[in-house]
Amino acid sequence: MRVPYAELHDTVRRALEKTGLDADRADACARIITDSTCDGVPSHGVNLVPRLIAMMRKGVVDVAARCVRVAAHGPVERWDGQRGVGALNASDSMSAAIALARTHGIGCVALANTNHWMRGGTYGWQAADAGVIGICWTNTLPNLPPWGASDPRIGNNPLVIGVPRAAGHVVLDMALSQFSYGALAQYRMRGELLPVVGGFDTRGELTRDPAEIEATRRPLPIGFWKGSGLSIMLDLVAAILSGGRATHQIAVGPEEETALSQVFIAIDVASLPGAEAARTADAIVEHLRIPARDGERVRYPGERTLERRRQHLADGIPIEQSAWDFLRGV
Amino acid sequence: MRVPYAELHDTVRRALEKTGLDADRADACARIITDSTCDGVPSHGVNLVPRLIAMMRKGVVDVAARCVRVAAHGPVERWDGQRGVGALNASDSMSAAIALARTHGIGCVALANTNHWMRGGTYGWQAADAGVIGICWTNTLPNLPPWGASDPRIGNNPLVIGVPRAAGHVVLDMALSQFSYGALAQYRMRGELLPVVGGFDTRGELTRDPAEIEATRRPLPIGFWKGSGLSIMLDLVAAILSGGRATHQIAVGPEEETALSQVFIAIDVASLPGAEAARTADAIVEHLRIPARDGERVRYPGERTLERRRQHLADGIPIEQSAWDFLRGV
Repeated sequence: MRVPYAELHDTVRRALEKTGLDADRADACARIITDSTCDGVPSHGVNLVPRLIAMMRKGVVDVAARCVRVAAHGPVERWDGQRGVGALNASDSMSAAIALARTHGIGCVALANTNHWMRGGTYGWQAADAGVIGICWTNTLPNLPPWGASDPRIGNNPLVIGVPRAAGHVVLDMALSQFSYGALAQYRMRGELLPVVGGFDTRGELTRDPAEIEATRRPLPIGFWKGSGLSIMLDLVAAILSGGRATHQIAVGPEEETALSQVFIAIDVASLPGAEAARTADAIVEHLRIPARDGERVRYPGERTLERRRQHLADGIPIEQSAWDFLRGV
Repeated sequence: MRVPYAELHDTVRRALEKTGLDADRADACARIITDSTCDGVPSHGVNLVPRLIAMMRKGVVDVAARCVRVAAHGPVERWDGQRGVGALNASDSMSAAIALARTHGIGCVALANTNHWMRGGTYGWQAADAGVIGICWTNTLPNLPPWGASDPRIGNNPLVIGVPRAAGHVVLDMALSQFSYGALAQYRMRGELLPVVGGFDTRGELTRDPAEIEATRRPLPIGFWKGSGLSIMLDLVAAILSGGRATHQIAVGPEEETALSQVFIAIDVASLPGAEAARTADAIVEHLRIPARDGERVRYPGERTLERRRQHLADGIPIEQSAWDFLRGV
């Protein structure tokens, strides 16, 4: 089914307000969730709302908590998310980093004790909309084996980079796993193999069979050993700067994963004189507009997001009936 | 053959001085090259010296140039490398970022018009040795096709992250290609297949055959589409912040690649009160000390580097006879 933006936003807002969020915060959180769904990422938008509401009801996510600044040193700040709503904490933290960047040229906010930020790309778009470069990442529960091992000890730690551009921001939003468990399940349910290897099978060989990877719980980091190393680094920096938990300290279980650590860096492009930022970004994007081998053409990060956003704002946002029924039933 | 550290350093220093570098700068550059070789990365140490000297003789690398600060806004600075020696420009830029971080908590130096920085890890170790977190990257000539295309339009843009730790810094140094052309050549010469897929063959299929990938010039970015996106983002941020060239503007050819753009970020862990940085880093590293499936154990980024460094300082640094002969013959 398709739902107009305003109706979806209103429905999510009501569901969150009924679960105990203050009206203004329910409105802001519903906007983040609706934007993500409108951008074509329902997996990190409306489809996460049942989990969010379950965690709010269990008290794992504290509906009343707001993040607070606990330390500051010029452009570097440490915030405590107080185990409040992850998307609001992340949005507030990126806002704080943007404000620091306006003053200092750069801002860095490290956030401890927060919850799942839903779609990481949200905060890359937020920075780009404010005209600044945004770089942010989160740690997660341990869901990937480090390279060479079988035991999940590192997180898929999504990394987001946003660069502002008048003709369409360039925004990368990538987890460090090659495929999420959600993606594996979708391929399995469609009876498809993965387009590239995504993990190990029960014989310890690389495989494109999603069910085998779900069984071994050995999905691949991007770039094999390289993504494994990058995951470790992002966890180190997030935990050290925030003073919060590292991946190995985060409880396992989708409704238990809490007390995450995140980093938000904003850099104000306008702080340096003579910046030809707009022309530079346009030239890089234009140079990538070449034919792809499948008859399409190469896309830059964020390009499909903008296409889907325009389409869904015009035609309504596609969501699954079950997600809609859930929202209406809260 | 094996050469003691002091002898290798002296030999590289003399070769660089004979090629026109001032004595103090020849000494500093030789130290970077000797350290990289001692750390087990001769490919980005002594084995790059013939190329460096050829570029100095051709004037592509200006032996007399020193990088200069061209703009500053608090903790954010822009430097111009003046097409001088890349390793010295990068080291000076990371030094400047570290100094900014001591004052402001964070420092960001964007460097334009520089040359190949040799081993990127050098600047991650430099930051960690100074007790700060270092994050840096460079763009490169176009040497990878963006995901979906055949034409090399993006760089392998190495990314480096260093985290200080008393018992051994944690330092990641990774190019965004799964295998460099140098690595492909080594596998081919040994008659081996790659351990995982590394690019496309002449039929457009993914392959582990290094010769096929050298023929198609279609090596893979890490994580397939993900590394392709990350490469684009790192190029955007480096070119925008430095005001320098983007990958598509960088000349192709190993001795022509010049006017690169780089970013150096340093964050002073000590700037925030109550940081338990040392304990946090130790706990993360300890939690990864688990058996690997090959009978070894999982290593953290930088662990093998430290092992090789200790071994080579004790037993001499292994280098190829041809590299030694080249250095002695300059």
